[in-house]
Amino acid sequence: MEEIEKKTGFLPNVFKVLSHRPLEFRAFFAYYSVICNKKTGQLSRADKELIILVTSLANRCSYSVVVHSARYRVFSKNPVLSDQVCINWRKSDLPAREKAMLEFTLISQADDITDDHFKKLEVHGFNQEDAWDIAAISAFYAMSNRLAHFVSLVPNKEFYLMGRTNDVKDIRSEPAAPEI
Amino acid sequence: MEEIEKKTGFLPNVFKVLSHRPLEFRAFFAYYSVICNKKTGQLSRADKELIILVTSLANRCSYSVVVHSARYRVFSKNPVLSDQVCINWRKSDLPAREKAMLEFTLISQADDITDDHFKKLEVHGFNQEDAWDIAAISAFYAMSNRLAHFVSLVPNKEFYLMGRTNDVKDIRSEPAAPEI
Amino acid sequence: MEEIEKKTGFLPNVFKVLSHRPLEFRAFFAYYSVICNKKTGQLSRADKELIILVTSLANRCSYSVVVHSARYRVFSKNPVLSDQVCINWRKSDLPAREKAMLEFTLISQADDITDDHFKKLEVHGFNQEDAWDIAAISAFYAMSNRLAHFVSLVPNKEFYLMGRTNDVKDIRSEPAAPEI
Amino acid sequence: MEEIEKKTGFLPNVFKVLSHRPLEFRAFFAYYSVICNKKTGQLSRADKELIILVTSLANRCSYSVVVHSARYRVFSKNPVLSDQVCINWRKSDLPAREKAMLEFTLISQADDITDDHFKKLEVHGFNQEDAWDIAAISAFYAMSNRLAHFVSLVPNKEFYLMGRTNDVKDIRSEPAAPEI
Amino acid sequence: MEEIEKKTGFLPNVFKVLSHRPLEFRAFFAYYSVICNKKTGQLSRADKELIILVTSLANRCSYSVVVHSARYRVFSKNPVLSDQVCINWRKSDLPAREKAMLEFTLISQADDITDDHFKKLEVHGFNQEDAWDIAAISAFYAMSNRLAHFVSLVPNKEFYLMGRTNDVKDIRSEPAAPEI
Amino acid sequence: MEEIEKKTGFLPNVFKVLSHRPLEFRAFFAYYSVICNKKTGQLSRADKELIILVTSLANRCSYSVVVHSARYRVFSKNPVLSDQVCINWRKSDLPAREKAMLEFTLISQADDITDDHFKKLEVHGFNQEDAWDIAAISAFYAMSNRLAHFVSLVPNKEFYLMGRTNDVKDIRSEPAAPEI
Repeated sequence: MEEIEKKTGFLPNVFKVLSHRPLEFRAFFAYYSVICNKKTGQLSRADKELIILVTSLANRCSYSVVVHSARYRVFSKNPVLSDQVCINWRKSDLPAREKAMLEFTLISQADDITDDHFKKLEVHGFNQEDAWDIAAISAFYAMSNRLAHFVSLVPNKEFYLMGRTNDVKDIRSEPAAPEI
Repeated sequence: MEEIEKKTGFLPNVFKVLSHRPLEFRAFFAYYSVICNKKTGQLSRADKELIILVTSLANRCSYSVVVHSARYRVFSKNPVLSDQVCINWRKSDLPAREKAMLEFTLISQADDITDDHFKKLEVHGFNQEDAWDIAAISAFYAMSNRLAHFVSLVPNKEFYLMGRTNDVKDIRSEPAAPEI
Repeated sequence: MEEIEKKTGFLPNVFKVLSHRPLEFRAFFAYYSVICNKKTGQLSRADKELIILVTSLANRCSYSVVVHSARYRVFSKNPVLSDQVCINWRKSDLPAREKAMLEFTLISQADDITDDHFKKLEVHGFNQEDAWDIAAISAFYAMSNRLAHFVSLVPNKEFYLMGRTNDVKDIRSEPAAPEI
Repeated sequence: MEEIEKKTGFLPNVFKVLSHRPLEFRAFFAYYSVICNKKTGQLSRADKELIILVTSLANRCSYSVVVHSARYRVFSKNPVLSDQVCINWRKSDLPAREKAMLEFTLISQADDITDDHFKKLEVHGFNQEDAWDIAAISAFYAMSNRLAHFVSLVPNKEFYLMGRTNDVKDIRSEPAAPEI
Repeated sequence: MEEIEKKTGFLPNVFKVLSHRPLEFRAFFAYYSVICNKKTGQLSRADKELIILVTSLANRCSYSVVVHSARYRVFSKNPVLSDQVCINWRKSDLPAREKAMLEFTLISQADDITDDHFKKLEVHGFNQEDAWDIAAISAFYAMSNRLAHFVSLVPNKEFYLMGRTNDVKDIRSEPAAPEI
Repeated sequence: MEEIEKKTGFLPNVFKVLSHRPLEFRAFFAYYSVICNKKTGQLSRADKELIILVTSLANRCSYSVVVHSARYRVFSKNPVLSDQVCINWRKSDLPAREKAMLEFTLISQADDITDDHFKKLEVHGFNQEDAWDIAAISAFYAMSNRLAHFVSLVPNKEFYLMGRTNDVKDIRSEPAAPEI
């Protein structure tokens, strides 16, 4: 945790909360790491943040919305898109590819997914493995959002302005530390 | 997996599906094991199955409803309660303690949990650590249910009658194999 | 009522409740009998139980769900399908014909039924008279479900295991006694 | 039917539709008659029409709303209250007794009726038998409304102005003919 | 206001309420006048009342429903259509042109209006300027309905029977006085 | 409009759209001005922006959410609160007074406002006139949001970062230009 704090300049609150249960803490981040730090496939870091952001909006999870809005701004180097996504991603300036990915994110969680949904995704260059990655990230945050609700997790103030101005330093420089 | 198959007489379908991604498979079951096989606290095996069952009903996940109905019948040694729970647990013959636990299960996933919810739970002998366990199990199945939807996981036929008649053999005899 | 009790081995609770109002009791069962014991048309006894089951699920009526799940198991000689239907009949192993019949059951109660709905039904060999029968049975249980709610009707324990094991004796042997 | 037509000056459309199935027709009206023409208890003819009207509004049944608005105007001798009820009976000029009766009408159909609901009704002079009557009438129209939807039953034009002006002649003079 | 009272025989209650804030009163009616008294385009006075009526039904505003039902009866010279519209305009006897106009009224308020919606309207002879007029009237009443809710505005009794019988005198004779 | 452009450095898009209908444009802004530029009462400029922001969030109006988030940041001199409000104002760091004001904003638009709602507002120092102001502003934006939807109004890019960094110049200096 010292390492993370050193890298980002502060310790995301999720670390403080989960450290209460060390075994679960380790299992949680081990699983997170397998899913979100996976390097292969068509999903960029910014894509993954978008998937998490839209999942967290659907679950009304304040913590994850603030944190992953910030991370999306950092990875996308775009300071305004995250606000558009938070209000209504369907009317945002996101390209068609990203919108298809987010449409699939939401449907991947529903109980009536069909072959058509996969086909709409493939049009934009995603394959079956990417589809699984989208679903797995989104399902993981279905869990994380609920845990964050349960402990009333509050975002560190630092996240609100992160990626809006020029003083971001480190998240982009190397694979970011895991955060709910 | 051979061991599980030997113990239960068949291999639950979830194992076949997740084995496609060995790293995620291992991380998933490691996390499951930390949460669901934890021995301390007030939650019995039957309690945990009830929590999973009600979570899965809320998420309309056929696979988990069938599997954990079966497991609840086995652990509770009651062949009819699971049917009552599936239709409407609030009107079932479950004792007040179990109903309080299930009420908390559902609220633990919402974004407006308050101290009152914890107090209502404590009346029945649960403490803060039990509350966390309930929330953690329910959150884990919020994820599992979504993964099961995504791969259209179908329950093995064996689960439907398990625990209704007398030919159940092994799940009860020792800590059951992990299953979604 | 003695006759019914003799035939089924117990007296379904609905008889006890409605006997409080003998005139309504007789009118209710006379109407039930005209609709549900009608022998012509394409609807088998098992079909009618499915229609009642899905209507009662939509109305969240515990009594009728338990009773008509049991009767469906008996008439269909299938011990597991009723559980699938209770969780999500659209994803059950029911054949396409039965699914079309149940889709029509639900739409027959809505205020926007169109010719298209009738056509989808006819594809599976049903005619206009069958459509009326489906609608009439479903509408009758819209009423019955509400009466069962009102008196908090509780299913006899005997229904839960009926049709799951081999000791069913009489319902199948002749036209079953009327039950809500 | 000739008799009814003679009495009201026209034949309500419901008679034409149901006559297609004479056995069901007779059972339907026999049941209607037992429930709605019952003379004892605290429910006046106008009360029963209100119960039917509010049930039919909840079920969005155009036919019954138009017909029973008309009949309520006739029995209550009030030409404007039915319009208020159609828009929002909770904000209408109905007395508290009638509002309590209608509140109970709606709750009598739900799956969570409690002793409190009965007590709120008793405050206004209703007893357990009246409660049953309210529930039975409302449940009967839950069925009727669905049948009316199914056959797209259209109200006779005569109903729209009935009870608004002075030329009503016969419904009030004696127990009205049964109508859905 | 004396002038209006003289013309209609009574002073609509909206005038009494808004006169509490003279500046807002004047701005409100000035805006109303620009939108609703506009003479060009394809919208007749009766059309505008229909648009207002359906908007007010969607917003559950008793005051405007009663008032504009009355005004629609007067302008359309049809005493029964307003009742059909209040129950379910989609199933009313309104011509296809009016139904298209009302469909557009509701969609004009939603956040997902598309070119298709405009095309469906143009089929019936409306152009882009008419579309704007429909949207502007409907949006104005989204505001008015809320103000009426806020002050619990009660319709004058005179409105209920207006346009149902023959004693209507003046609204039709000249451009009607503005009313919420 | 040149004046506004000069003052803010750009011309908000709403001016371009409404200028198509000069009469409505003038009536709209005249009404806006009476309601929103009113100087008396307990509502500060920042309060009014909050009322508009929460109304626009409820109506899912992207344009107004972006514009009035920006204006709230400027008037409140707080760069992060607007983000919290956009996600979930009930869990934001807003003081109890502002939360009561926003609770009233939403209820002022519903059809079941009661004396209790007014009392809860008065606890925080607001009086009946303030209550009216809150309701009037919120109702005005119920209209504005719908007009913005209708014309698919897109926020100027300048609004996204306004109030987050230090280069804001003029809105705060004098009564801001009217904007939807």
